[in-house]
Amino acid sequence: MALDLTPLFGPRRDDTVGTMVRGLVGSEILRIAAEIRELVAQGKQVCNLTVGDFSPREFPIPSGLGEAIASALKAGETNYPPSDGVLQLRQTVQRFYERTLGLKYPMDGVLITGGARPVIYGVFRAVMDPGDTVVYPVPSWNNNHYAHMVGAKHVTVVTDPEHGFMPTVEQLAPHLSEARLLCLCSPLNPTGTMISPEALRDISQRVVEENRKRESQGRKPLIVMYDQIYWTLTFGQTKHVTPVELVPEMAPYTVFVDGISKAFAATGVRVGWAVGAPSIISRMKDVLGHVGAWAPKAEQVAVARFMDDVPAMTAFLETMRRRVDERLVALHQGFEAMRAAGLPVRSIAPQGAIYLSAQFDLVGKAGLRTNDDIRKLLLDKAGFALVPFQAFGLKDETGWFRLSVGAVSLEEIRAALPRVEAVLREATGR
Amino acid sequence: MALDLTPLFGPRRDDTVGTMVRGLVGSEILRIAAEIRELVAQGKQVCNLTVGDFSPREFPIPSGLGEAIASALKAGETNYPPSDGVLQLRQTVQRFYERTLGLKYPMDGVLITGGARPVIYGVFRAVMDPGDTVVYPVPSWNNNHYAHMVGAKHVTVVTDPEHGFMPTVEQLAPHLSEARLLCLCSPLNPTGTMISPEALRDISQRVVEENRKRESQGRKPLIVMYDQIYWTLTFGQTKHVTPVELVPEMAPYTVFVDGISKAFAATGVRVGWAVGAPSIISRMKDVLGHVGAWAPKAEQVAVARFMDDVPAMTAFLETMRRRVDERLVALHQGFEAMRAAGLPVRSIAPQGAIYLSAQFDLVGKAGLRTNDDIRKLLLDKAGFALVPFQAFGLKDETGWFRLSVGAVSLEEIRAALPRVEAVLREATGR
Repeated sequence: MALDLTPLFGPRRDDTVGTMVRGLVGSEILRIAAEIRELVAQGKQVCNLTVGDFSPREFPIPSGLGEAIASALKAGETNYPPSDGVLQLRQTVQRFYERTLGLKYPMDGVLITGGARPVIYGVFRAVMDPGDTVVYPVPSWNNNHYAHMVGAKHVTVVTDPEHGFMPTVEQLAPHLSEARLLCLCSPLNPTGTMISPEALRDISQRVVEENRKRESQGRKPLIVMYDQIYWTLTFGQTKHVTPVELVPEMAPYTVFVDGISKAFAATGVRVGWAVGAPSIISRMKDVLGHVGAWAPKAEQVAVARFMDDVPAMTAFLETMRRRVDERLVALHQGFEAMRAAGLPVRSIAPQGAIYLSAQFDLVGKAGLRTNDDIRKLLLDKAGFALVPFQAFGLKDETGWFRLSVGAVSLEEIRAALPRVEAVLREATGR
Repeated sequence: MALDLTPLFGPRRDDTVGTMVRGLVGSEILRIAAEIRELVAQGKQVCNLTVGDFSPREFPIPSGLGEAIASALKAGETNYPPSDGVLQLRQTVQRFYERTLGLKYPMDGVLITGGARPVIYGVFRAVMDPGDTVVYPVPSWNNNHYAHMVGAKHVTVVTDPEHGFMPTVEQLAPHLSEARLLCLCSPLNPTGTMISPEALRDISQRVVEENRKRESQGRKPLIVMYDQIYWTLTFGQTKHVTPVELVPEMAPYTVFVDGISKAFAATGVRVGWAVGAPSIISRMKDVLGHVGAWAPKAEQVAVARFMDDVPAMTAFLETMRRRVDERLVALHQGFEAMRAAGLPVRSIAPQGAIYLSAQFDLVGKAGLRTNDDIRKLLLDKAGFALVPFQAFGLKDETGWFRLSVGAVSLEEIRAALPRVEAVLREATGR
């Protein structure tokens, strides 16, 4: 007869844990997700554009990858991987960067991790001392949480739709002299936009100048975390660029965040990597080794095998890109058509990632006062589920939202757009 | 033409990273492993008892588990798992603890993680504030690193072979009133010994008393991290016990570290779990969610499926236990025979885990001054590779070593023992 422990715990209490974790705030997106589950359970039809993930039905992983994992398991790839990752995969990533980004890193500049989040955590933990300053633009994803966890001072730089929500050197420059870490992400979660080569070159040159000054003063350099987890998912004419290719002197100060999670629709497979300056990578390896945030070994072996089949990988990425793009374009064109019809909506033409930035300009109309009011209206009346930019650190109630297409079909989007249009017409009386 | 970045990095420098990571010390075991690789590369025969891991050839994972992972991948279990783990697996763990440990936890007391290390890191990170005190016995595994990472004050309690290197309440008591965290592990890495029900009951009662006092004073309680990752691997008459079954009032103060890594010889599959007080577990979930130290989704689904097949799991565990035990017994009996022949070696009868504690009482003999001298002698002259207890925080040069049997065959052990005996005879002139 087992001992029933529930009565021994009493109500949840937060005074048994430490100060840092008590200050961690929950995810707004998860709160919204719970609301949607509720509606779906009630039988409501919801076009769910909230999750930064894929539905395996819409976006399966490459079949070759799944098979390679199964065969690696059969071959006994089941014991500890080396703490910096299986050598074969590190070499594959090295070649991939050389071939596609034009950047040839030394082997000790490549670290395999259990997805991309550990890379971000590793950078913050390896670089920052408590009280150090991190600078990041908003809207952006989760930098606030990582900064909080390491006890950093946050400096946020609010970007604007005119620059595709990307920061400019003019916006960042006043904050760089005190910063230890600058976080950039392109293609950007939540906006689906990309930084221009000009803007990134200007920022990189400014960082190199700053660090030249610091080196002469014996001060620690400013490090740039460049999150490019979505970089294989770009559309149209926009070319993905990196700080290091634009300004090679950035190499000692740059760490890339990357992995298969988005490229191969494989968020649950948990394989990511950091590529960057060996001095930083080596300390990230130490941290993440103790944390144990390693990618499973069979998956590491299998990803190496799959990525070394360049034609198969290229074909998969092409299909992936096309399928994401057609969803984003359907949404964008739908909104543009409504806009042309005088309705208060606009979106930014998709450039990368699985997101679209759309503005529902309804604050002050029909009794709507906040982005969350608009969100609820669209969810309740149109079964159209979005995440407001507030979830990504933007405070202004300007009607901007993230729309994520990884878990919806083209048909769901097409069916939802008329419902959205009807809500907009009703709210504005057009 | 790719840009060759190596010349841009220069020599490795540690002044670009933070203070905490600069203080992380490398693993002694990995240093020894490199030495062994070197010898093997030179063609030397080495019985490698240093790695706390399994050779998949000697210890494959359950075939049913591998097949279940492959079929979960095929079924599209490839997107994000929930941040506390796949519900089905959490329920499986809940039932497993109820059935085998007699402890019925509520669902929010179960958290799935990417192996067991993230659980340890999560406990330290969720419980400790910088400057808080952690108490742990030595020899033990890696508590020093985790304490360093969270900026804790370390208090180590040196245990002795007479108590199987397990702490007693008398040894711990003087340190508990100032402690926030007490780390216990049974079966213990590195010793292969287990705590007795009496010793654990005494310690648990003392913790409950301490916390009764603290609650009345409004002070934060003392938390116990109970690492039982090896608890399914026990031999002979020794019964594995838990603080909560012995003293149920321990439930709000206890977190278990556990997973499949050792039970199923699956260190590279990366599935672990924390079971404990929901107030702590919920904050560990927050921390590890941002860290991204999740178990891969297909593996989570597959582990649930495999563990729900109770006869298959039980049969696997039986075989696993037998195969580990026969290796440990072969070593132990070998040493006991040498001891009976007057040679300066003894070992503690194996109780659990994949380790044997053995003492080569050679300090001061044949010019040997330290455990590392003994280690090198046995490696060079007998091809017998061990890890000294110094790697687990014990400072005294008393000739104690950890012998790990996960990566060797019975034949290798049998072949190595006469070589060890010859070295001992030569060193002692017997």
